[in-house]
Amino acid sequence: MFTLSLIGIGSGNPKHLTLQAIDALNACDVILIPSKGAGKDDLAGLRHEICAQVLRSDGPDIHEFTLPKRDAANPDYHAGVHDWHDAIAQVWLAEMQRTLPQGGRVGFLVWGDPSLYDSTLRIAERLQKVVTLTVDVVPGITSLQVLTAGHAIPLNTIGNPVTITTGRQLRDHGWPQDVDTIAVMLDGTCAFEVLRQHSDVHIWWTAYAGMPNERRIAGPLDQVCDRIIATRAEARAAHGWIMDIYLLRR
Amino acid sequence: MFTLSLIGIGSGNPKHLTLQAIDALNACDVILIPSKGAGKDDLAGLRHEICAQVLRSDGPDIHEFTLPKRDAANPDYHAGVHDWHDAIAQVWLAEMQRTLPQGGRVGFLVWGDPSLYDSTLRIAERLQKVVTLTVDVVPGITSLQVLTAGHAIPLNTIGNPVTITTGRQLRDHGWPQDVDTIAVMLDGTCAFEVLRQHSDVHIWWTAYAGMPNERRIAGPLDQVCDRIIATRAEARAAHGWIMDIYLLRR
Repeated sequence: MFTLSLIGIGSGNPKHLTLQAIDALNACDVILIPSKGAGKDDLAGLRHEICAQVLRSDGPDIHEFTLPKRDAANPDYHAGVHDWHDAIAQVWLAEMQRTLPQGGRVGFLVWGDPSLYDSTLRIAERLQKVVTLTVDVVPGITSLQVLTAGHAIPLNTIGNPVTITTGRQLRDHGWPQDVDTIAVMLDGTCAFEVLRQHSDVHIWWTAYAGMPNERRIAGPLDQVCDRIIATRAEARAAHGWIMDIYLLRR
Repeated sequence: MFTLSLIGIGSGNPKHLTLQAIDALNACDVILIPSKGAGKDDLAGLRHEICAQVLRSDGPDIHEFTLPKRDAANPDYHAGVHDWHDAIAQVWLAEMQRTLPQGGRVGFLVWGDPSLYDSTLRIAERLQKVVTLTVDVVPGITSLQVLTAGHAIPLNTIGNPVTITTGRQLRDHGWPQDVDTIAVMLDGTCAFEVLRQHSDVHIWWTAYAGMPNERRIAGPLDQVCDRIIATRAEARAAHGWIMDIYLLRR
């Protein structure tokens, strides 16, 4: 009855859009965009801007919907995320049935790439249990790629592995075994601080990756740690929100 | 004197090209494309196809050059790679000085993304020691993203880390510590075989990611291991080359 098109739109720069993503957007019957909540980031605006730039005049209708909020107070992180995904799945289904009562192709513009620390595939999995649903995924440029491109550095050292992880993991478990490079996403609390005593760690940090206000700082962690923390706090206060990512290598 | 534009072109599908990559290609004075060696893969052809599709008529000149071969017989893998990068840097520099004696902007179409298991940034670093050089990097869709998109799976489990590694690492060191998911690239020898006794491992395998002849197999590793090995051997014999990638999760 439905095809769900999860379309990676890249990280902040409308020029990150691939030709495949442009085709996929135009092939939709309806595009659903979560509306911008008060005090939230500029992502809803960016999604509308992308649609305005690339959708043909005979392209899909655009509908906004209100995204449920995650209960950040839930002490069980995984249970909180699970409940949140359930709630989003219900809202998606209601919007799909309302806007396309006969079924059809529904598109979502996914920040970065749908595979990386994103919930849309998990929500699609829930929907597949209650409606007949095909899932199409279109890859997109991630903030991790914008980080390495902006600093003009490789992700990996020659022939060696890399671990992509979260701020929470780094804070709780320290440097992962057997890798010389870690990329850290979803870090709201500057978890790199736990490594500041290590004089052999280099950091490359990027905030607002891909956006006009992109900020980058790189250097030995023990030398630039405080500058990143201060810059992050200032930028967050100035913009009302921040998204950042960093690579650590030793 | 020179700007080097390292432009990620995605993995096999010309539609992976981003709008940013198209702009970057057209902004070059010269584009250098390694010529197709006998019995090699179709990558030189794809690069020419992409240029033909997106370059404006007043766009850059295209020059082919012969890429030095890596001495795969060198028992010291890192030394062999190091020497090979030195040799490529010399060829790049000679081509840049020949085609742009006054300097200018030189573009390279980089398979996937310049940050991930790619040598162009390391070659650029060598050139920076001998000429005045600015390096611009444009991110591109990687085969890893095409793998997860094709199978419609997330790269990570919720809030957990992922390790990206090589076939050599997996064969020599086994499953890395502390992660439930590993993505394996550059594996010429089906290193996943070392895990075939583990009944709790699931594999998602993709060959020729993004190309018309893309092949995908997924399932419990102990059940699909032999089928992947056989399919890989047949496809390699039929096409004369193969590139594949896989995700393992337990």
